[in-house]
Amino acid sequence: MTNTEATEPLLSGSEDPEAQRFTRQSRKRRLRRARSAPCNIIADSPDKNCNIPEPRSESIFGNIHSSFRKVAMYYLILYLGIGSVVFYLVRDQMKGLKINGVLDAIYFTVVTMTTVGYGDIVPDSSLTKLLACAFVFSVMPLVGLILGKAADYLVEKQQVYLVKAMKIHQNVSQREILKKVEVNKARYKFLLAFFLLLIMIIVGTVFLVMVEKLTVIDALYRVCSTVTTLGYGGKSFSTEAGRVFAVVFILAGTISLALMILYIAELNTECQQKAIVKCVLLKKMTILDLEEADLDGDGTVRAAEFIIYKLKEMGKISQEAVSVLMHEFEELDVDQDGTLSVSDLTDHVGNI
Amino acid sequence: MTNTEATEPLLSGSEDPEAQRFTRQSRKRRLRRARSAPCNIIADSPDKNCNIPEPRSESIFGNIHSSFRKVAMYYLILYLGIGSVVFYLVRDQMKGLKINGVLDAIYFTVVTMTTVGYGDIVPDSSLTKLLACAFVFSVMPLVGLILGKAADYLVEKQQVYLVKAMKIHQNVSQREILKKVEVNKARYKFLLAFFLLLIMIIVGTVFLVMVEKLTVIDALYRVCSTVTTLGYGGKSFSTEAGRVFAVVFILAGTISLALMILYIAELNTECQQKAIVKCVLLKKMTILDLEEADLDGDGTVRAAEFIIYKLKEMGKISQEAVSVLMHEFEELDVDQDGTLSVSDLTDHVGNI
Repeated sequence: MTNTEATEPLLSGSEDPEAQRFTRQSRKRRLRRARSAPCNIIADSPDKNCNIPEPRSESIFGNIHSSFRKVAMYYLILYLGIGSVVFYLVRDQMKGLKINGVLDAIYFTVVTMTTVGYGDIVPDSSLTKLLACAFVFSVMPLVGLILGKAADYLVEKQQVYLVKAMKIHQNVSQREILKKVEVNKARYKFLLAFFLLLIMIIVGTVFLVMVEKLTVIDALYRVCSTVTTLGYGGKSFSTEAGRVFAVVFILAGTISLALMILYIAELNTECQQKAIVKCVLLKKMTILDLEEADLDGDGTVRAAEFIIYKLKEMGKISQEAVSVLMHEFEELDVDQDGTLSVSDLTDHVGNI
Repeated sequence: MTNTEATEPLLSGSEDPEAQRFTRQSRKRRLRRARSAPCNIIADSPDKNCNIPEPRSESIFGNIHSSFRKVAMYYLILYLGIGSVVFYLVRDQMKGLKINGVLDAIYFTVVTMTTVGYGDIVPDSSLTKLLACAFVFSVMPLVGLILGKAADYLVEKQQVYLVKAMKIHQNVSQREILKKVEVNKARYKFLLAFFLLLIMIIVGTVFLVMVEKLTVIDALYRVCSTVTTLGYGGKSFSTEAGRVFAVVFILAGTISLALMILYIAELNTECQQKAIVKCVLLKKMTILDLEEADLDGDGTVRAAEFIIYKLKEMGKISQEAVSVLMHEFEELDVDQDGTLSVSDLTDHVGNI
């Protein structure tokens, strides 16, 4: 969604004079970009209330916007805190394998929050059953928040992958090169998440074999049913050490799986963007396209009109948004000469 | 992502001459839009392989792209089919409350697929445990696909809400009007999904009370732990009718909850777009902005340059994408006069 990466031009080391010209130009533009970035990072913005999402860093967890991470963390801590206290207070109305009052309350809260729901400790009164319902539903807004952020993340990646695919396309201008190593970042992140999950599964299995004395198959089965939040019930974490481990493991395992799913979606986004670039950039401009691209109807297609035309073809912006902004432009263009000048700005004071 | 709605201009019935001028203009542009739509719907596109997502309809389930829906349906049917056959064949290696071979196999498959995992029927051999692991993991790509589509859906809504917020802003040009009824579609859909879920919960509870002879609290508790995929285990669907109902109810309930979460994310998107419009459109253009917006550096800001500048400020497009497309334009502009003309196109044959 935002201008995230200060990506190094791909052409930096190129020998090609055409490419060097482009590099110089993009360097010049990078300097100018400072003020055309989304308004939240403009220091002298007149409206300080803007809360457009900030650019994000690129680490595996840093992908998630930091203020969102704060909200999610507070939510998690509050949820675990309140849940543990509440279920500790009603511990006599729970049935099942009880080991340690406080630990059991935390364990039950985590098992409920992640919707794993083993069933080794379950509510045994109307009050506790209703409490369990309330707690499992109150985690849903957090899931909605996470989904929204995952969508934002994917949108941002759409832009990044679109630009990369376009650059690769331009540098070599051959279809085959779209498969270049350069854009395989999504695959790399997917593999990273996959191995993280694999390590989680191995650690969990080894732990269950060593501490809970399960067979390897049983341990694996239990670990898989944990990270996927399946949790069939039956024999699970039945020692004090086991439950301490479970609290950490369930949270880490479900997050790992969620990350892997996010990166599957990102891989899919990357493929889509490649297809879009392939489709739009390989299509030759025709005279009809020129007519179409001529936004202000003055009979010429300038750079900005060409860019808008291509962005529309790629589905990046809608005709509607262009129309509305065109109207905005016409309002600002007081002398109606088709350009904005300093006099238009001064004539217009106080209107918008 | 695409030009979805052929939205009627909001100003159709307006008395304001300024507004009518805009309506006429947008009607003219709508006619021209036909060819500037994303390339998959251009009949004479030279590249038939384009697979940019098509526009989607607006119904509660029609939100999901139809080809995606087909893939998801095939996946679901194949999954349920294979799962039922496999778990029917190994039914002697399962333990728990068995009622009817075929029904139990379908029931177990659904309970596994949705990660509800009651634990009333569970694997009882190494083979079945590994099978259960394989089945629960093989549903994860589908979850990734759904997440990706949910993100696409939210992106598309971002565009729609941005345009709506801009229109409302322009029509009345007062901050307060951003709260107008017009944009409350997300809230309406959220409420619809909420009531759908509520009805599911009531139907499920009534059914469990009537057929499975549970108390109201127990029934409610079981229904809530089903739709949230918590499934603590313990007493659940123990009659033949109950299991038939469960198969339908678990799928419908989890989908309802997922829809509600999606609409929570959409509500959030709507708020974000309002904030962006508020921030960008209320900000007055300054001379510095004019300099910034002058993309081709010719000293004037034309409509298209203004549009690109505003889109960049809203974070809708990145400077990178603009730079790359600028380069594309320079390649096409053979005579380097800053405009594309018919002669540029003919000189350029075979290059891109």
